[in-house]
Amino acid sequence: MALTRTASTFAPPVMEARRWLDGVDFPATRPLINVSQAAPVDLPPLALREALAEAALHTAQAHLYGPVLGAPELRAEVAARTARLYGGVVTPAQVAITSGCNQAFNAAIMALTTEEDEVILPTPWYFNHKMWLDMAGVQAVPLPTGAGMLPDPDQAAALITPRTRAITLVSPNNPAGVEYPADLIRAFADLARQHGIALIVDETYRDFHSISGPAHALFTDPDWDDTLIQLYSFSKAYRLTGHRVGAMLASPARLAEVEKFLDTVTICPNQLGQIAALWGMRNLDQWLAGERDEILGRRAAIEAGFPRLAAQGWDLRGVGAYFAYVAHPFDEPSDRLAQRMVRDAGVLALPGTMFMPKGDADGARHLRIAFANVDSAGINVLFDRLAGLRA
Amino acid sequence: MALTRTASTFAPPVMEARRWLDGVDFPATRPLINVSQAAPVDLPPLALREALAEAALHTAQAHLYGPVLGAPELRAEVAARTARLYGGVVTPAQVAITSGCNQAFNAAIMALTTEEDEVILPTPWYFNHKMWLDMAGVQAVPLPTGAGMLPDPDQAAALITPRTRAITLVSPNNPAGVEYPADLIRAFADLARQHGIALIVDETYRDFHSISGPAHALFTDPDWDDTLIQLYSFSKAYRLTGHRVGAMLASPARLAEVEKFLDTVTICPNQLGQIAALWGMRNLDQWLAGERDEILGRRAAIEAGFPRLAAQGWDLRGVGAYFAYVAHPFDEPSDRLAQRMVRDAGVLALPGTMFMPKGDADGARHLRIAFANVDSAGINVLFDRLAGLRA
Repeated sequence: MALTRTASTFAPPVMEARRWLDGVDFPATRPLINVSQAAPVDLPPLALREALAEAALHTAQAHLYGPVLGAPELRAEVAARTARLYGGVVTPAQVAITSGCNQAFNAAIMALTTEEDEVILPTPWYFNHKMWLDMAGVQAVPLPTGAGMLPDPDQAAALITPRTRAITLVSPNNPAGVEYPADLIRAFADLARQHGIALIVDETYRDFHSISGPAHALFTDPDWDDTLIQLYSFSKAYRLTGHRVGAMLASPARLAEVEKFLDTVTICPNQLGQIAALWGMRNLDQWLAGERDEILGRRAAIEAGFPRLAAQGWDLRGVGAYFAYVAHPFDEPSDRLAQRMVRDAGVLALPGTMFMPKGDADGARHLRIAFANVDSAGINVLFDRLAGLRA
Repeated sequence: MALTRTASTFAPPVMEARRWLDGVDFPATRPLINVSQAAPVDLPPLALREALAEAALHTAQAHLYGPVLGAPELRAEVAARTARLYGGVVTPAQVAITSGCNQAFNAAIMALTTEEDEVILPTPWYFNHKMWLDMAGVQAVPLPTGAGMLPDPDQAAALITPRTRAITLVSPNNPAGVEYPADLIRAFADLARQHGIALIVDETYRDFHSISGPAHALFTDPDWDDTLIQLYSFSKAYRLTGHRVGAMLASPARLAEVEKFLDTVTICPNQLGQIAALWGMRNLDQWLAGERDEILGRRAAIEAGFPRLAAQGWDLRGVGAYFAYVAHPFDEPSDRLAQRMVRDAGVLALPGTMFMPKGDADGARHLRIAFANVDSAGINVLFDRLAGLRA
């Protein structure tokens, strides 16, 4: 009997890593440093929470079904903000609100592909993308990244077949941290358009990009929506991970297809989450700028502190937004090393094996460090502990 | 080129029906009676809203990622309540919380099937079930219902093939309203077990069942989870449609598979919705009993008022929970009639065609009336308007 959809993929990595903590003691003098998940751990600002409480108490619409593609005001706000940030024309009809950014990717894939189609993903890839392609019966075609953890459009071109339906980029990248240059993203868009396939660009971490202006110029093309599908998340910007709100920008024709999927999977995004996202966009620009400064400061602390790890054979392969992707100096494969680090160093990080095709040796040499929750002082402690690891 | 996943199914019926309202005027003397969607339109009780507001303000966990399979306290509450209501043993490890009940069905199908597998659905079916099977590449095998809109286990047995993975029942039924007798549900469970397939029982409307005790005895079987997958929704009971919270009860092994799907599609159910559902279960039993009385009163008004429609050739095929399924007396197919009813009667109801395999003549003779939002006086007005319809 053929494998079921879920049996054709692996268990959620973050949940698996969490189980490595079972039965391990973390003394008060050496508490756990958890750099496994990219998620704020602090509350959203009080004013946002007050707006949510007010809506819960007095807004009927906060409790009722809404449109499948999201609240009209939120779609309009996302359209206006995208047009302002990136230049170009973006209409509310080109915006869908989803129950988190993972779901936006799911929906895009369901609208673009069917059984045995192919989607090109640079490696290391984001594991939930791979998991969804597995469950959708779609072949994830790995595109190994080279210098600077960047994918090469010419190499991608060589992977395109009659079954290829899309290329997916994540920038700033999860897990590699690197920011893809605007001209590289443009080259991928040109390649996709030339082959009549979609370019999905997941910009979940764009609010923490080191460039404060537009990260690419794709929206300035009046025909952007014949090729581009942009994905976004409100979770990181406004500390709304528990509310599940994301967005997708695409052509109205594609969103009519996406609507079928979203209707069947969640009927509509939850209303309070949408209210929080809208309130955040309208009121938290200055606060978010401060958040970004803090994250960029942590990134700087990673870069400044790394030389002493480098002296022990570690290599900083990529860093940016929430992530550092590092090569470790041990013969041990990263999935075993990561479990040993929990006991020996009180550090939980995800092994590169979780971001690579099964059996690929490259994953065994790397770790992802999701440093967003660790301040500069904490990064020093983290590096002390990593420097103390022995083979 | 093969159709994409979404292109292989139809547009969301509720959204399509909503478009029939465009450009139609509803004078104040004859406002629209909307019996198209099964959804409360009133706010949840103030005390629940206050609990939500309090959590939004002061509970960190309300804003952060939680476990993929849901909050432990909510899983425990669902397990305890199910054990109490139905008898038998149900543990928290047999419960998953989902982003609405549709998603629970999606997850079950992904854990049970792959491309070209088959799932048996009594007809008329719930359209989102059919849409998901289409998108999952699974054949929905229609099981026509007979007298009293009930499916026949012997007929179902004749439809089982080596590709059959599950039978799905909805009771109380959407769209037909009928409550499946306990011994009928048991017969289906026996049939499923005998063939080593799953029985999915969607009990979204169970809080409005005319029997206040257990609607079936399946949970009293200590091995219930080798066959049964029960689906539930918090949306109707506590007026939480906009919060997207549902549940699935199944074996821990199946839930480990389900976890892969849920992690990839939403990461976790939204936290405020889970807080609302838990608060409702712990505090609103008496309130919910009143809600049920009101719905049962509206059902009685449907039954009491129907004879004057029957005199004009209408037939009440099924009634219960939120729905009446009626045969109309016109030669016109129901999808055209439903659109004409908007203009001629100020009534929006869904045509039977939306609940039947494409081209099946039976759907053209029926309408679904989702009466839960119309009080007894309103049901009289609704019947006046239907009685006034001419061919």
